[in-house]
Amino acid sequence: MAQLSSVAGIPIGTIKFYLREGLLPAGERTSPNQADYDERHLRRLRLIRGLIEVGRLSIVEARRVVDAIDSDIGLAETFEVAQHTVSEQVDAVDLDRGALDLVDAAMTGWRVSEDNPGRLAAARVIGTFLAIGQPDERGWLARYAEAALLAADADLDEIESRPDREAQAETVIVGTVLGDALFAALRRAAQEHATSLRYGTESDGAG
Amino acid sequence: MAQLSSVAGIPIGTIKFYLREGLLPAGERTSPNQADYDERHLRRLRLIRGLIEVGRLSIVEARRVVDAIDSDIGLAETFEVAQHTVSEQVDAVDLDRGALDLVDAAMTGWRVSEDNPGRLAAARVIGTFLAIGQPDERGWLARYAEAALLAADADLDEIESRPDREAQAETVIVGTVLGDALFAALRRAAQEHATSLRYGTESDGAG
Repeated sequence: MAQLSSVAGIPIGTIKFYLREGLLPAGERTSPNQADYDERHLRRLRLIRGLIEVGRLSIVEARRVVDAIDSDIGLAETFEVAQHTVSEQVDAVDLDRGALDLVDAAMTGWRVSEDNPGRLAAARVIGTFLAIGQPDERGWLARYAEAALLAADADLDEIESRPDREAQAETVIVGTVLGDALFAALRRAAQEHATSLRYGTESDGAG
Repeated sequence: MAQLSSVAGIPIGTIKFYLREGLLPAGERTSPNQADYDERHLRRLRLIRGLIEVGRLSIVEARRVVDAIDSDIGLAETFEVAQHTVSEQVDAVDLDRGALDLVDAAMTGWRVSEDNPGRLAAARVIGTFLAIGQPDERGWLARYAEAALLAADADLDEIESRPDREAQAETVIVGTVLGDALFAALRRAAQEHATSLRYGTESDGAG
């Protein structure tokens, strides 16, 4: 375990905690106080840390998605587990009907179930916009929907590139949990770029 | 205040809390225990609630961005306040150099400063991907960058549609804080749609 800790750069206390919480499978015991950990343990350890520290999942949420990887459920169901884990529960009855109509209009032609957590969460955001008097005058919502389709297609291509079910399930989980953080980060960089293009503000030009 | 609470659908206790925390300006006092609140108070109240409840800002963060709206700083600076408020602080020295190079390659031609919080946060996500052995085989990162540019352009068009500096600053703040939640939500719906198109899974077809 000391070696695993040193290679992964993760404290032994954290590894023991993950083991106790059932997030990391136990190593193969070779003596009463010695166990063997292999490459799989290392990868899983890094996955768990990424989900918790970068993806901001709770221990319970991390265990739920890791269990989905280790199960034999299909990809659609794995997506469902991932989506429900990272999405805030929004109750349809609390939503502004006008906001829901706007979201459905932006998704015209999409095959999306009525209880898709994303559909409801999007309506909640748009409801907030409407409540504070922010009109959508330049097709903001529709353009976000278009961008979301690009990202979702990239997600599926990435998943299809994986060699087997377990690797695909892992990509579903990681892509769902960390994809939000990646897009949010890139949007901030893109905002600086677009602002600089339009208004000629200064930039160090790292890109 | 009772009337403001009833129109906004926000408890009096919450309104008093926002007033005490300096998030909401005091109403015009008409008697020792009576104050007038107008349309501006109502909008501001809804904005604060949206930032905190939907955007998940802390009180301190909400005050920081509301102060930016009420100041006379320019749009670029307002963006900076918004971005730094919603972005996790990532220290460049903690980042994998290879991950940073990949992010810069995906942003080729972009005018982005080296310390843009999005650039660093994106490198942190990609570093996690690399650490858990998730290769980027189908241009996932580059396609996310392309989607982010679409969103950023939509953001700027939306901001430009506003009539004055204060309204524009408000859109900068709201778009930055709630845009992440909106895109994440739409991506989930788009994933269901794209999965359904490719693999023909069942759907209620709300869209």
